[in-house]
Amino acid sequence: MTVPETKESKCDVLIVGAGPAGLMLAAWMARCGVNARIVDKRSTKIFSGQADGLQLRSLEIFDSFGFSDRAWKEANHMIEICMWNPDENGKLRRSDRVPDVQPGLSRFTQIVLHQGRIERFFLDHIKKHSKDTLRVERAVLPETLDIAEDLVGDHSPGTYPITVKLRHLTDEEATPAQSNGSSTRDGLFRSNLTEDDTDDLIQKSREKEGSTEIVKAKYMVGCDGAHSWTRRQLGFQLEGEPTDFIWGVLDVIPITDFPDIRMRCAVHSASSGSLMVIPRENKLVRLYIQLNEIKPDASGRADRSQITPNTIIKAAQKIIAPYSLTYEYCDWWTAYQIGQRVGTNFDYNSRVFLAGDAVHTHSPKAGQGMNVSMQDAFNLGWKLGLVVKGIAQPSILKTYQSERRRVAQDLIEFDHKFSRLFSGRPAKDIMDTEGVSMADFKDAFVKGNLFASGLSVDYGASMLVAKEGNTAEQGDGTDVSGSSKTHVSSKQELATNVKLGMRFPSFKVLNQSDARPWHFQEQLKSDGRFRIILFAGNVLSPQQKSRLDAFCAALSTSSLVAPHLYKNIDILTCHSAPRADTELLRDFPEVLHPFDKTTGWDYDSVYVDDVSYHEGFGDAYKNYGVDKETGCVVITRPDQYIGYVGPLDGEDGWAGVQGYFRGVLVN
Amino acid sequence: MTVPETKESKCDVLIVGAGPAGLMLAAWMARCGVNARIVDKRSTKIFSGQADGLQLRSLEIFDSFGFSDRAWKEANHMIEICMWNPDENGKLRRSDRVPDVQPGLSRFTQIVLHQGRIERFFLDHIKKHSKDTLRVERAVLPETLDIAEDLVGDHSPGTYPITVKLRHLTDEEATPAQSNGSSTRDGLFRSNLTEDDTDDLIQKSREKEGSTEIVKAKYMVGCDGAHSWTRRQLGFQLEGEPTDFIWGVLDVIPITDFPDIRMRCAVHSASSGSLMVIPRENKLVRLYIQLNEIKPDASGRADRSQITPNTIIKAAQKIIAPYSLTYEYCDWWTAYQIGQRVGTNFDYNSRVFLAGDAVHTHSPKAGQGMNVSMQDAFNLGWKLGLVVKGIAQPSILKTYQSERRRVAQDLIEFDHKFSRLFSGRPAKDIMDTEGVSMADFKDAFVKGNLFASGLSVDYGASMLVAKEGNTAEQGDGTDVSGSSKTHVSSKQELATNVKLGMRFPSFKVLNQSDARPWHFQEQLKSDGRFRIILFAGNVLSPQQKSRLDAFCAALSTSSLVAPHLYKNIDILTCHSAPRADTELLRDFPEVLHPFDKTTGWDYDSVYVDDVSYHEGFGDAYKNYGVDKETGCVVITRPDQYIGYVGPLDGEDGWAGVQGYFRGVLVN
Repeated sequence: MTVPETKESKCDVLIVGAGPAGLMLAAWMARCGVNARIVDKRSTKIFSGQADGLQLRSLEIFDSFGFSDRAWKEANHMIEICMWNPDENGKLRRSDRVPDVQPGLSRFTQIVLHQGRIERFFLDHIKKHSKDTLRVERAVLPETLDIAEDLVGDHSPGTYPITVKLRHLTDEEATPAQSNGSSTRDGLFRSNLTEDDTDDLIQKSREKEGSTEIVKAKYMVGCDGAHSWTRRQLGFQLEGEPTDFIWGVLDVIPITDFPDIRMRCAVHSASSGSLMVIPRENKLVRLYIQLNEIKPDASGRADRSQITPNTIIKAAQKIIAPYSLTYEYCDWWTAYQIGQRVGTNFDYNSRVFLAGDAVHTHSPKAGQGMNVSMQDAFNLGWKLGLVVKGIAQPSILKTYQSERRRVAQDLIEFDHKFSRLFSGRPAKDIMDTEGVSMADFKDAFVKGNLFASGLSVDYGASMLVAKEGNTAEQGDGTDVSGSSKTHVSSKQELATNVKLGMRFPSFKVLNQSDARPWHFQEQLKSDGRFRIILFAGNVLSPQQKSRLDAFCAALSTSSLVAPHLYKNIDILTCHSAPRADTELLRDFPEVLHPFDKTTGWDYDSVYVDDVSYHEGFGDAYKNYGVDKETGCVVITRPDQYIGYVGPLDGEDGWAGVQGYFRGVLVN
Repeated sequence: MTVPETKESKCDVLIVGAGPAGLMLAAWMARCGVNARIVDKRSTKIFSGQADGLQLRSLEIFDSFGFSDRAWKEANHMIEICMWNPDENGKLRRSDRVPDVQPGLSRFTQIVLHQGRIERFFLDHIKKHSKDTLRVERAVLPETLDIAEDLVGDHSPGTYPITVKLRHLTDEEATPAQSNGSSTRDGLFRSNLTEDDTDDLIQKSREKEGSTEIVKAKYMVGCDGAHSWTRRQLGFQLEGEPTDFIWGVLDVIPITDFPDIRMRCAVHSASSGSLMVIPRENKLVRLYIQLNEIKPDASGRADRSQITPNTIIKAAQKIIAPYSLTYEYCDWWTAYQIGQRVGTNFDYNSRVFLAGDAVHTHSPKAGQGMNVSMQDAFNLGWKLGLVVKGIAQPSILKTYQSERRRVAQDLIEFDHKFSRLFSGRPAKDIMDTEGVSMADFKDAFVKGNLFASGLSVDYGASMLVAKEGNTAEQGDGTDVSGSSKTHVSSKQELATNVKLGMRFPSFKVLNQSDARPWHFQEQLKSDGRFRIILFAGNVLSPQQKSRLDAFCAALSTSSLVAPHLYKNIDILTCHSAPRADTELLRDFPEVLHPFDKTTGWDYDSVYVDDVSYHEGFGDAYKNYGVDKETGCVVITRPDQYIGYVGPLDGEDGWAGVQGYFRGVLVN
């Protein structure tokens, strides 16, 4: 084999790892038009197994990219949770039924679809929006990382502080071995019961002098999993402990007389451990089973050779008895030991970032792994995009660790509590204090579901979230207060249910021009734009109309904001006057529905809180907690999180909006 | 050029024309696994213009094939109709707003999307379900048709009574010329203002001795448009008259201060004619404009050279004044003279069939053309499929003409009334009897919308619809009574809103096994199967349970029906007992949820009328008009139309079901 000359090239953002986190980041790069590369050491994408649960917030995010419908159509929908545990005679019975998602929380419910399909949706999206210029480079992995410390603070366009040597593997090298020579696919090569193979891969490839290249990058993101090579290069740690619980996972088409096999079930047996049932697409059911008979050895790690699909189903059969449970078809299986750990750092000098499993590992039972990982990257991607494009100030990059490390800490705390309750033996009676009370379990499960939905995330104060309080305390300790000169105060009381730091909630409104009902959140696309959401109030009142006109006049003439309008800052209006009595051209200033000489007026920016013919009444003002007469102004970040709430009043209202953007945009 | 030897081949069904009707038929062929071919004389599919409105019934049909979501997502949704006409001073004003679709009629509303996208959905579907074996053969057209009269009555598998010579054109020959050398696409080559070019195409190709082939077919369907070559070979006529009304059609992005440009509008000017506004996808708006200044000449045909986009927009400007209306971008335009005609025959000896524009032409204003054409083919396709596969008796083919010619006659009658009201000058006052009363127009419009939705279609009595009355009178005059020995009586009163001859209406029910809400109609897929829909009633009542058991015992042991179960006859159950109190395996006989040794029990066949967590209560029994205690049995045809309603009672109920299938299936 000839040794190719090592080539050298530049890119703005280098992404390592093409799992859900890496692909989410790449999706943002495509949407923001950033020159990025994404590499993955594996030669093929995933076709079965791995993560499966899609939480409400993930579906909202998919919707903002335009592909929630694909997931919704293909997935299994989980509607109800059934809890099974022993009655006073030790006989297994259903003790409770609860809805999987609390009614009214979101327009979505929790669904289940295997990771390979979700990665497909991302790949299609990235292809479309990058015009096929951004593709996952498979069987490619980084071998060395150098950071020019003297350059990290210099965010001028021509500066590339990061140098990475990439190694290209052969297909054979990049294909993980399956255990036991079985034809059933397993996920052990990704499990924490197996040693990571990255160093081996590099070592083996080196021996035969494979092809390498040098990439200079402005920013780098390690989405390279629990064994993260990137994290190791930075010298960052995961803090926490592995637990003693060993779990097996089996994707099968079950043959059973258990009546709730198509429900999400938590089954606590009297003394044989616990089982979680997750019904999936294509008749599959995922069984999560605690393997009580397999214990970690002195090294703290269990012997994985003891674990086979047969070990797992046998354990499940004991738990679910007297019901029968067998299978003919197994799609995938794996096993792991629960570890609950959080990265010490998510960010190296605002230049190299870590996301997903690289900075948090925990049990998969609440269906959080893929969701939180994608949401890490969803938080980081637009910030990187706007900084690379020279639109936003580099200081916003610090909010990534502040916001997401705090979420990871909360997640681990939740998982710790939940795992203990799930894995514990059910209490025999009220005196059995070593056992777990099933009433406590139910309570924790129901409360935990709100956390698990992803909708309770509440980012702390920062230059991106104009709320009161200490930025370090509200985040992970990082200082993200920005310059004191640009401090802006919100007036949360003007929109009591549009909560600063939380995602913009969704209620139905109608398009003013064609009366079509939309969930308002559907208009907040992930296109890299901030949004000024104008709750314009009763525009038919002359007094309110003059406040609106004054605000719009300030908006259209602002030397700071006006140049960004439509391009980096979108405007959406929702008014509360009767739809049939208002007219777009007559009642709304032009800045709210701009004119283009080829395509005419914009008919898609002004909405109304009014009753629809076919889909009821969203009652949006009431549900958003906004006064129908006087309205208010909201700013959402490109990820739909709320940055500012203030009054619509002419100069006063305008000062808040201007102040917010002064702290964020490059002036 | 060498002259290739004429090759000869066989197929079961030859489809001529790959517009919406031809593609719908091909979709059925793919779903039924029939060896079919589909040819079209044009070399490319449509990319803009042509038909656009998708009615409720068409969307339900798309849903049964699994692609309504694609249309729903891409289309513009029409929600409201605004009526504009002169006030007492002759000034144009909005007189009324009405919903485009009456609330409660369907889970869909009317949408607008151009024909090219709809054809794309069909092509993708055909490709998937035929495993890419059925493709549209473009630039191919029939040149001769021979029917072996002595063979037409012989439906044995080896008999091919039809011989067609197909001619393959070059790309150049098959590309229609555009008028005026304009770069804007127009549809004049398909308009009735232009002579048909089929004979020219054949003649020109003959001169250079192009390639031909001989195809022997069992059945043939002409979906070849208003100038249908197939119809001419059979010597069948279109009956009716062209009218004097000349209309122009313009797809533009309008620049206008007219406030309702994104609504569906009917605009009657005082004396400049009428305009219909149809808002479309991608900011386009379609304008239908009556061209009063262009009159047919003595030959009855207007001079098309007088008609340009400029003629059309000028006419529109006069009608819509004092509002301004211009455009920079025109996507497509055409012009036509309204003709209202119905074919004398839809069927030649149950061997050659005509569908779509080949057998009915009318004005496009009610958005009916593409919809009724697709619905013709939707009616015919499964019948042909089941006869070719030897499952159904060939006599059912006669119901195609009986059912669809009657619909075409009703359509022409509707269009005649509606066109007159639309094209007429508005009455100045109550004494102006020559003018059209705008109150009458509104009334007709609203009533007409129910007809236009496609949901009011009510097929007459036949061997496929077990209802009382004269089959000839209820259809187009064709005798489709079948053998008197197999006459079956329904009991409509057992399901008062599941109307014999109409489509199965849709209300929400829950899957018994996973509590997921579905519109019940979503379970009636277009897979070529009849369905026994068992309204099982209150299965927790011992009396009702024993009736259900007796019926299921008869079903699973019937020598006529049992061999067809699941393969050609699907069973869906909907019961009315509380979901949480019932269990699939305990309360329902096995025939309702069959067991498979690899995939276990079927969890997708039993549904319940109960409240959902997130999507309300469908109240299905009440809405279907079925008694909650005693239920009933319904049979739907593969096209979702209702063929039979009867009691669930053991022998009695069973006799009706058995009798229905005896008259339809090959025994």
